Amino acid sequence: MHPSNNKANRVAVVGASGYGGIQLVRLLKNHPEFNVSFLGGQRTAGNHWNDITPFLKLESDYIIQRPDPEEISKCSDFALLSLPNGLSSQLTPELLNRNVRVVDLSADYRYRSLRLWKKIYSSESEKFSRNDDLICSEAVYGIPEWNQNEIKSAKLVACPGCFPTASLLPLLPFLKQGLIDTDSIIIDAKSGTSGGGRDPKEHLLLAECSESIAPYSVLEHRHTSEIEQIATSIAGKPIELQFTPHLLPMVRGLLSTVYARLRDPGLTSDDCSVVLEAFYRNYKTIDILPVGCYPSTKWVRYTNKASISVQVDTRNGRLILISAIDNLIKGQSGQAIQNLNLMAGYEQDLGLPLQTFYP
Amino acid sequence: MHPSNNKANRVAVVGASGYGGIQLVRLLKNHPEFNVSFLGGQRTAGNHWNDITPFLKLESDYIIQRPDPEEISKCSDFALLSLPNGLSSQLTPELLNRNVRVVDLSADYRYRSLRLWKKIYSSESEKFSRNDDLICSEAVYGIPEWNQNEIKSAKLVACPGCFPTASLLPLLPFLKQGLIDTDSIIIDAKSGTSGGGRDPKEHLLLAECSESIAPYSVLEHRHTSEIEQIATSIAGKPIELQFTPHLLPMVRGLLSTVYARLRDPGLTSDDCSVVLEAFYRNYKTIDILPVGCYPSTKWVRYTNKASISVQVDTRNGRLILISAIDNLIKGQSGQAIQNLNLMAGYEQDLGLPLQTFYP
Amino acid sequence: MHPSNNKANRVAVVGASGYGGIQLVRLLKNHPEFNVSFLGGQRTAGNHWNDITPFLKLESDYIIQRPDPEEISKCSDFALLSLPNGLSSQLTPELLNRNVRVVDLSADYRYRSLRLWKKIYSSESEKFSRNDDLICSEAVYGIPEWNQNEIKSAKLVACPGCFPTASLLPLLPFLKQGLIDTDSIIIDAKSGTSGGGRDPKEHLLLAECSESIAPYSVLEHRHTSEIEQIATSIAGKPIELQFTPHLLPMVRGLLSTVYARLRDPGLTSDDCSVVLEAFYRNYKTIDILPVGCYPSTKWVRYTNKASISVQVDTRNGRLILISAIDNLIKGQSGQAIQNLNLMAGYEQDLGLPLQTFYP
Amino acid sequence: MHPSNNKANRVAVVGASGYGGIQLVRLLKNHPEFNVSFLGGQRTAGNHWNDITPFLKLESDYIIQRPDPEEISKCSDFALLSLPNGLSSQLTPELLNRNVRVVDLSADYRYRSLRLWKKIYSSESEKFSRNDDLICSEAVYGIPEWNQNEIKSAKLVACPGCFPTASLLPLLPFLKQGLIDTDSIIIDAKSGTSGGGRDPKEHLLLAECSESIAPYSVLEHRHTSEIEQIATSIAGKPIELQFTPHLLPMVRGLLSTVYARLRDPGLTSDDCSVVLEAFYRNYKTIDILPVGCYPSTKWVRYTNKASISVQVDTRNGRLILISAIDNLIKGQSGQAIQNLNLMAGYEQDLGLPLQTFYP
Repeated sequence: MHPSNNKANRVAVVGASGYGGIQLVRLLKNHPEFNVSFLGGQRTAGNHWNDITPFLKLESDYIIQRPDPEEISKCSDFALLSLPNGLSSQLTPELLNRNVRVVDLSADYRYRSLRLWKKIYSSESEKFSRNDDLICSEAVYGIPEWNQNEIKSAKLVACPGCFPTASLLPLLPFLKQGLIDTDSIIIDAKSGTSGGGRDPKEHLLLAECSESIAPYSVLEHRHTSEIEQIATSIAGKPIELQFTPHLLPMVRGLLSTVYARLRDPGLTSDDCSVVLEAFYRNYKTIDILPVGCYPSTKWVRYTNKASISVQVDTRNGRLILISAIDNLIKGQSGQAIQNLNLMAGYEQDLGLPLQTFYP
Repeated sequence: MHPSNNKANRVAVVGASGYGGIQLVRLLKNHPEFNVSFLGGQRTAGNHWNDITPFLKLESDYIIQRPDPEEISKCSDFALLSLPNGLSSQLTPELLNRNVRVVDLSADYRYRSLRLWKKIYSSESEKFSRNDDLICSEAVYGIPEWNQNEIKSAKLVACPGCFPTASLLPLLPFLKQGLIDTDSIIIDAKSGTSGGGRDPKEHLLLAECSESIAPYSVLEHRHTSEIEQIATSIAGKPIELQFTPHLLPMVRGLLSTVYARLRDPGLTSDDCSVVLEAFYRNYKTIDILPVGCYPSTKWVRYTNKASISVQVDTRNGRLILISAIDNLIKGQSGQAIQNLNLMAGYEQDLGLPLQTFYP
Repeated sequence: MHPSNNKANRVAVVGASGYGGIQLVRLLKNHPEFNVSFLGGQRTAGNHWNDITPFLKLESDYIIQRPDPEEISKCSDFALLSLPNGLSSQLTPELLNRNVRVVDLSADYRYRSLRLWKKIYSSESEKFSRNDDLICSEAVYGIPEWNQNEIKSAKLVACPGCFPTASLLPLLPFLKQGLIDTDSIIIDAKSGTSGGGRDPKEHLLLAECSESIAPYSVLEHRHTSEIEQIATSIAGKPIELQFTPHLLPMVRGLLSTVYARLRDPGLTSDDCSVVLEAFYRNYKTIDILPVGCYPSTKWVRYTNKASISVQVDTRNGRLILISAIDNLIKGQSGQAIQNLNLMAGYEQDLGLPLQTFYP
Repeated sequence: MHPSNNKANRVAVVGASGYGGIQLVRLLKNHPEFNVSFLGGQRTAGNHWNDITPFLKLESDYIIQRPDPEEISKCSDFALLSLPNGLSSQLTPELLNRNVRVVDLSADYRYRSLRLWKKIYSSESEKFSRNDDLICSEAVYGIPEWNQNEIKSAKLVACPGCFPTASLLPLLPFLKQGLIDTDSIIIDAKSGTSGGGRDPKEHLLLAECSESIAPYSVLEHRHTSEIEQIATSIAGKPIELQFTPHLLPMVRGLLSTVYARLRDPGLTSDDCSVVLEAFYRNYKTIDILPVGCYPSTKWVRYTNKASISVQVDTRNGRLILISAIDNLIKGQSGQAIQNLNLMAGYEQDLGLPLQTFYP
């Protein structure tokens, strides 16, 4: 299980001062097999990590550096990129060329088609020139509970973000089995504000978003197409769905409430719970709750778990799936480490927190 | 407009120490035409109001009394009842007999059929004996923007609560016009914790519900039947819908995200916005937002307003309605005063707060 | 009471899009005697107010303009300046020259000595050239409960901010009477995050400051010198004190806990409560609570009130004063209107909210 | 270091369903050397732990039992008691008689004098009969950084709560060295609401305490005498101090801001920082921050750490100490395990979380 060559465990974290980066450093610090080898950043380059992050000191007091591929490749076997959309595509090809395997937390390699990416991420596309079609087509979309074999051998894993993770995990077993009307899917999602990142924006101020809930990007959220792409690929037929995100007054946590029509309205909640359990029984990262018990995001905070519950309205054959995750762990950095574990030959949940504190 | 006989303005508040009661006292204190004449309560009976509510002192320092119908009728023309479900039914008939007109904030008179109430509120039905079928059938369900004429002359108004108010206001115009598939309605609702009342319960502790979101009463929430009853009556045909409430980490505010299929998929967002504007243009209590602008609950906090927005997904003809209210004002006590205004012959928004502070 | 010439009631608000400005517009909108005549701003100039502030629409849909003194003077009798420190000093002399009376919410005119201002606000002093010594020396520091006569005739009122207001109101009566050891004063203050303004900063993000408390600017907060200046002037002898602010996870509200030694340790809590009542009995803006009852900031939220309580430890003769305000109303914009009321010849609390909603 | 006899590691948790108990179970679940052997509770007795705590499942699905000393002694070497004040004294003597070593999280054994306890905890004293003077006099007050040798051999450790822990840790080195005026100490403390426990009370509802700060038990908080007792014992002379707790709108975290006069006003912040470092340099549970860097409670959330900073006002020789802990870990259950580690012969920080997640 454990590779004898420890050298395979040197990990660069790029974008280290953002929320994604901080989680990555935190998780790697406690991980039994990986070591941080490089901390990269733009805004904070030149600073000592321990000075600007007194709550998360590292034994070696790194200086944060501008992310130079050559420098990274000298000291790292893996790179975890937690960068703004578009920026990652400027770095990833250079890293792959130098045999650094990459887990990318941005949206840059989540589409198999660069053309589609350019359409959805049009403003980034104008800012960053890209012609890495081939890399796009070979990148692996990393949901570790669904395609671990591809991930194990991947050079580049595109790590899904919080909304797709929370929404797809409960939905995919039903799509795979062909159990739901594919034009009936509605995802009503609710996220804490840390999902908006650490870069200061007015709408993320406590004064603005405390004591408030509002939807945003109705119809237009870019994760819609990402969720549709994966749902389509698992269902084997084209899927269009409704996705409405809401911003909640809390730091962490994401809840997806997913509605769909069962093709066979005779299926019960217990039947549907069995479907979920059958798919996920071997994964410590997924909890299927008893029918009638619904997850709170607090139950999975600071863990790499999804907690899922299912209910069926027998009056109308409508399926209701509830899924809770920590948006920065299972919805981002924990999942990145989960992918990294597989790439390095470990169990996928090695070193990841699976137990919350409460309350 | 203003009745010459000021006597018609004496108002008893029963259940004064709960959140509903406190709002009622607050709103009446600033109202130009009504005077508090009696403060009733069980748990706090015998206490001076000003001693136990130092943040909301009244000029006359009332002693809170057990609600005796005879006493109330001696000093009051109207009674606002903010009592637990079931308890109101023990008091209301006695008040009506003594010519006190009643606005009831509980669920006791929200169904035209007592039999239906007994089914839905079965535990209350076991605890409180009721045979006031006639009163049930004559009570008016008070949505002041929809049936002001009935309310004006009503002896008893059943005041809708927060979830039905926020959900029905955007939905009713489309049901009235026959514009949506009646079996396609999904209401995903999100509420602050003050909706759970002031009686201490573990799940409403800050330690439990801060930094957390969870659904509750999935499929089983009792407001489902109430919403269906009114929707059915306006649509003129039976409606079954999905209603999923969620508990949010905030004090006040309620957002309903409502999904439905348009019967004519050619309707645009602008068309649907016009539908809403046509229905509500004369009501200061309803704001229809421009297409593409979505309400935050913070925009209507501490006001008697609903802020509503509509969007249509032209890919699939799905209508998305967003509606934000303050659950304790427009979703409860403010709406009660709105009804009271009509019963007493005033403009329905007289003396009600229509402008939030921000942030 | 009411001036016959309504022209004296035209008010310009400069810095309208910040939290201070929004409160000013909100309060003026509901005020019976003042009208908004001009909305000024830098960042938002050129926008329609109603477009960017859909939660606070004005009947006349103003376009926000760069603040030109000539333009302001054409349409305004008063100007309320809610600008960053330093910027106000570039505008105020020009307005005064044009006979526009000014209430300034910044720190620019809070010191009688420009030299002291330049020392304390050294970075602003480098950025903005000032030689308006005379204006500084003639400006009135506006605590309306303490110097209403000066305020009434002032051309320029420097409106104190949240920390000085909450800390001085309970302390001044004891300083005035010479009841406390002047070297024993410790102010431990706690503020919501809206005090940090609307301009996005990392440390004010919900993700950063929710579920957290921390002190800041220990020893170094610039309000220390401002509090000392006023305390010294009322006490009639030099006062140095300790002031430690803390940032709390809430939007609004400020609590000051003030400790000092009584010169006569025989004074009781009741004696000290009488001292406070004697000073403030005629002011609706100040509530002195019964001994043993302590204010929550929630009791004064969205009001122009301070709620104050006093306690004495008879073991050691130490006085403890607790004072709660809404930092954006009584601690900022409400107090500005209170000053404006006096300048225009009205009762100081005219049109100001004095009653919170709860919870 | 590690006892060969694993039997010495069986731990009963009594009061398991409260916040203290939940933390204990959580920490023991991840501890390398201890095993939960018994879960005791009153209110939840008869329930399966895993049913009522779905977010913290144990591999052996315990049934919660009424705490019978005989049953506990059969399966346990240690008992951790997280019970209401008074109740612990009814169980502890029986457990000690049966050779079960006890860590008590209540106040029952925090005073060496039972008479003093009866005075301070007078209502509990009326409810629970006690004559265990001897046990009181022999119990060890467990601050593991200060008296580890006594703790190692103790039969009964009284574990200090959150306010004394956060306040004493920064203060004791200065008292021990005789560096401060002993009549000058003021502790202004701020706590999250989980410190009030899981038993539902109105003032702990989110609707009440969100968006609010207020002091409570001014002069009268029972921890005053407890802090004074320990401070007196370390200083070697009687100490009376001021202690004012405040309730904050957050789940977890406690910040103490401590003010005192230095006897030698020539001491600098750096000198005082050296004093702290000298005392705590060998303890991973204490972080002394660089001068000018102040802790946020968020930096130590979910950890068994105290983060401490010191500052001196050279104008007046006043010392300001800032101390942040997680009230339920270092302020309660983590500290209990820290004591348990010592009693069982391990390093005191074994198995305890020392690294927060952020944000």
